[in-house]
Amino acid sequence: MSLKTISITTDFGLQEANVAVMKGVIWRIAPQVDIADLSHLIAAQNILEGAIVLNHAIFYFPPGSVHIGVIDPGVGTSRRPIAARLGDQFFVGPDNGLITLILEQAEDRGFPIEIIHLNNPHFWLPEISAVFHGRDIFSPVAAHIANGVPMHELGVPISDPIRLPLTRPERLGKGWRGQVMHVDHFGNLGTNLEAKQLQGMQNIKILLNEKIIDGLVRTFGDRPSGSLIALIDSSGYLAISIVNGDAQSYLKAKVGDIIEVEEG
Amino acid sequence: MSLKTISITTDFGLQEANVAVMKGVIWRIAPQVDIADLSHLIAAQNILEGAIVLNHAIFYFPPGSVHIGVIDPGVGTSRRPIAARLGDQFFVGPDNGLITLILEQAEDRGFPIEIIHLNNPHFWLPEISAVFHGRDIFSPVAAHIANGVPMHELGVPISDPIRLPLTRPERLGKGWRGQVMHVDHFGNLGTNLEAKQLQGMQNIKILLNEKIIDGLVRTFGDRPSGSLIALIDSSGYLAISIVNGDAQSYLKAKVGDIIEVEEG
Amino acid sequence: MSLKTISITTDFGLQEANVAVMKGVIWRIAPQVDIADLSHLIAAQNILEGAIVLNHAIFYFPPGSVHIGVIDPGVGTSRRPIAARLGDQFFVGPDNGLITLILEQAEDRGFPIEIIHLNNPHFWLPEISAVFHGRDIFSPVAAHIANGVPMHELGVPISDPIRLPLTRPERLGKGWRGQVMHVDHFGNLGTNLEAKQLQGMQNIKILLNEKIIDGLVRTFGDRPSGSLIALIDSSGYLAISIVNGDAQSYLKAKVGDIIEVEEG
Repeated sequence: MSLKTISITTDFGLQEANVAVMKGVIWRIAPQVDIADLSHLIAAQNILEGAIVLNHAIFYFPPGSVHIGVIDPGVGTSRRPIAARLGDQFFVGPDNGLITLILEQAEDRGFPIEIIHLNNPHFWLPEISAVFHGRDIFSPVAAHIANGVPMHELGVPISDPIRLPLTRPERLGKGWRGQVMHVDHFGNLGTNLEAKQLQGMQNIKILLNEKIIDGLVRTFGDRPSGSLIALIDSSGYLAISIVNGDAQSYLKAKVGDIIEVEEG
Repeated sequence: MSLKTISITTDFGLQEANVAVMKGVIWRIAPQVDIADLSHLIAAQNILEGAIVLNHAIFYFPPGSVHIGVIDPGVGTSRRPIAARLGDQFFVGPDNGLITLILEQAEDRGFPIEIIHLNNPHFWLPEISAVFHGRDIFSPVAAHIANGVPMHELGVPISDPIRLPLTRPERLGKGWRGQVMHVDHFGNLGTNLEAKQLQGMQNIKILLNEKIIDGLVRTFGDRPSGSLIALIDSSGYLAISIVNGDAQSYLKAKVGDIIEVEEG
Repeated sequence: MSLKTISITTDFGLQEANVAVMKGVIWRIAPQVDIADLSHLIAAQNILEGAIVLNHAIFYFPPGSVHIGVIDPGVGTSRRPIAARLGDQFFVGPDNGLITLILEQAEDRGFPIEIIHLNNPHFWLPEISAVFHGRDIFSPVAAHIANGVPMHELGVPISDPIRLPLTRPERLGKGWRGQVMHVDHFGNLGTNLEAKQLQGMQNIKILLNEKIIDGLVRTFGDRPSGSLIALIDSSGYLAISIVNGDAQSYLKAKVGDIIEVEEG
């Protein structure tokens, strides 16, 4: 049996056993898989935050990996359970927009894409609760995918998965207007402005919450401790940081704040 | 060698290396096992909370899985270390009541049960500290069980494990009086009233901390955001929630609060 | 292929996908390895805290385990990436002092030691970001070590790794002066005074933040709940605790506080 990897992303927190229950269910069906926690601290019901975290991670995983996402406020309602093949990675979760960014990335990179409405209960647990499809549907389906069950046996193909409405960066006269998309553990602010959009711009000035930052640095250690800096983060996006500090607190920044980049 | 699974439940938190040390000890003895964290955020020394989390999880694991529990304020005193076979699952930990709910569940379901006082140091680490039996006794014993060592080699059978005193639901004239047993990450309130106790009751009213809830819903999405609802949770117990909100804060509820369910 | 274990220690927190990304990168190269999280809650940029956690854990792991440490404020600057063989364990991470305590422990125990400046990009990801060497250098190198790549292929030997300046215990007239090194999840205070330094001392008195503790106890349960006690912790160091309580809050203690032990 070949080794396969399954990742799990939820808003369940780390106190209860829900994630471990999902692992138990997976290993009953696919004992050979390795399981990685992607994050379980997604803010409750925050589908966009889950989509961002999935998008940072899944394409680093080995071919054939299956990624379960359970930020699922609509569990047990008419929202569809889905599975998707995005190039050599698989997604399993609710059809509520959680797939938006990884689907877009797969489209941008020209990967083959296949999306299935999971409606074949043969691959679910025998009893389905109305409140925990992570355990009863998504985990067993992910395990069956890891075992090599072909997508078309899991349900019927669809082409209209729900997508989150995303704010796109806007062209300014001599730059771009974007927004803060994500605040990380260190207080670094991730944005939706990509490195490639800034290429070729001279003497750039960055404006965020009434502070101006001059130019980009390559890495944190290029400036003294406490400096407010802008740099390209490890996902290829513009980020705002304080060296050895917390840019979020300093700038009182939050997701959705406007950031502008202009040539000086 | 067959794959086996070991889970770990502690009140150690996530900052120190104690849990990883246990994993290292396990893998030295049983390199083929997968290890799942069940929870390490059990409140310090809260044996009941650990018992509840174990009870939510262990019977979802593959046959032959071993579950280590280390909420162990009596470590190094005369409290016994124990191992138990509960149907096709194993428990290893202190004899302080942590086994109560999984033992009761195994009894209710008529599973074969075998409990051992671990007193054979042959299966422990060579040096035993007075303060970390999770590392020195429970992890090596769990690894040996996963390797197929029979229970009777680990120590002597006992029939009097410590059980926590539990408050049972009481029959009211036209309903039940129970209590809040558990508050989850979302602020949902789990109770000790079971779905089967409520079966057949008409027009139920639920009273908790001076609020009245009319009837049960199937799932969160059946009511608008912000609604106070009652539903059957994924473990089969009555739970109180706020749709996309936090019932604990709203009701100022805590473990032990009285909840009453009556026919209207 | 033999099973191998890789552990990961970071200050990344648990919210983002960075750790999972590292696991994906590792499993692409070495699909057979088990991965353990050591801690991801090291205080941001706190190299000493990371060094302590590594030192508590790595020598409990199976021979051939690889331990990645990413507390790396100097990422992308001229600080060297290194790998080290310390007896039968391996370390991979930045050359910023994170290795200090495990290196010292290996020296004290007379283990063979080999340290390499990682400068062979053949074993890295093809693209190296300036801000995430955990993903781009340390994870792939660790995976290659787990696969059996010999150290000398990864770079050139060095003998001058950065070491943190450590405060050593001082001899007093009839005892020792040490300091608090670490505060754990329960509020227990770990010190740099070792059990062997206290051996043979009679009627010892322990002074910390104007409180005096008489004598050592073996374990928590030797005193009633709420007692302030001193004992030898599971790593062999003097620790100060409150039975079922929080010594840090009670003593308003912090890392660096002076602790004195004297014969009475």
